[in-house]
Amino acid sequence: MGLVRQMKELGKHIILELFGCDVKALDDLKGIAETMRKSAEEAGARIVGEAFHKFNPQGVSGVVIIAESHISIHTWPEFGYAAVDIFTCSTNVNPSNSTNVNPSKAYKRIIEYFKPKTMSLMEVKRGLLMGDKI
Amino acid sequence: MGLVRQMKELGKHIILELFGCDVKALDDLKGIAETMRKSAEEAGARIVGEAFHKFNPQGVSGVVIIAESHISIHTWPEFGYAAVDIFTCSTNVNPSNSTNVNPSKAYKRIIEYFKPKTMSLMEVKRGLLMGDKI
Repeated sequence: MGLVRQMKELGKHIILELFGCDVKALDDLKGIAETMRKSAEEAGARIVGEAFHKFNPQGVSGVVIIAESHISIHTWPEFGYAAVDIFTCSTNVNPSNSTNVNPSKAYKRIIEYFKPKTMSLMEVKRGLLMGDKI
Repeated sequence: MGLVRQMKELGKHIILELFGCDVKALDDLKGIAETMRKSAEEAGARIVGEAFHKFNPQGVSGVVIIAESHISIHTWPEFGYAAVDIFTCSTNVNPSNSTNVNPSKAYKRIIEYFKPKTMSLMEVKRGLLMGDKI
């Protein structure tokens, strides 16, 4: 077993927890869909599919598929909470396939829309490859 | 500040890393779409939206929106890797709204389909609420 010369990830997954959000924004399917599309565009991503759903009595689920990635949002207006996931393909593996998506631009727009009072952001490296596989 | 009497999550998020998968399965949009639909059904979930995309030269992205939840899959056939996320609404908050989805049934079917040689599974509690908010 030699040294691990390098370690690279295929995907970057940002997990956002938004608390104390604007309650109206959380229950507004049209506003959420628009924000997700804009945030994908501003991040430099190409949208290849989408699906949205409004729940009864409240709550919205939305997913936008961008090239080799996705943005998903689930909201609970009754708790002022939104769960946001931004999954992007890393640019450091297979650069010819990648889209140079900048996830920070996507989540800035989303945070601006929901106006959370508190939040957490976690970044998870997905598909971590080592050494000779890269 | 009193004791935190209870702590409950709104969502349960399962993050699956599948390595050494069946390469044909990873690049088969139809097979992946079918597996995602079946896994949602077997988990007791109601599908409310979906979007799939096949990349050139290879790779598939798919998202199925189930009631207050989603299943997403991104594949990299060239690395034998699939990133799977299963996000479900917890049954211990607002049971009248919940769908009693069993995420383990969903990921068993997905694992069966991709046949990974190695894998990791992480569970993240999303929307953690404390005490009087519940």
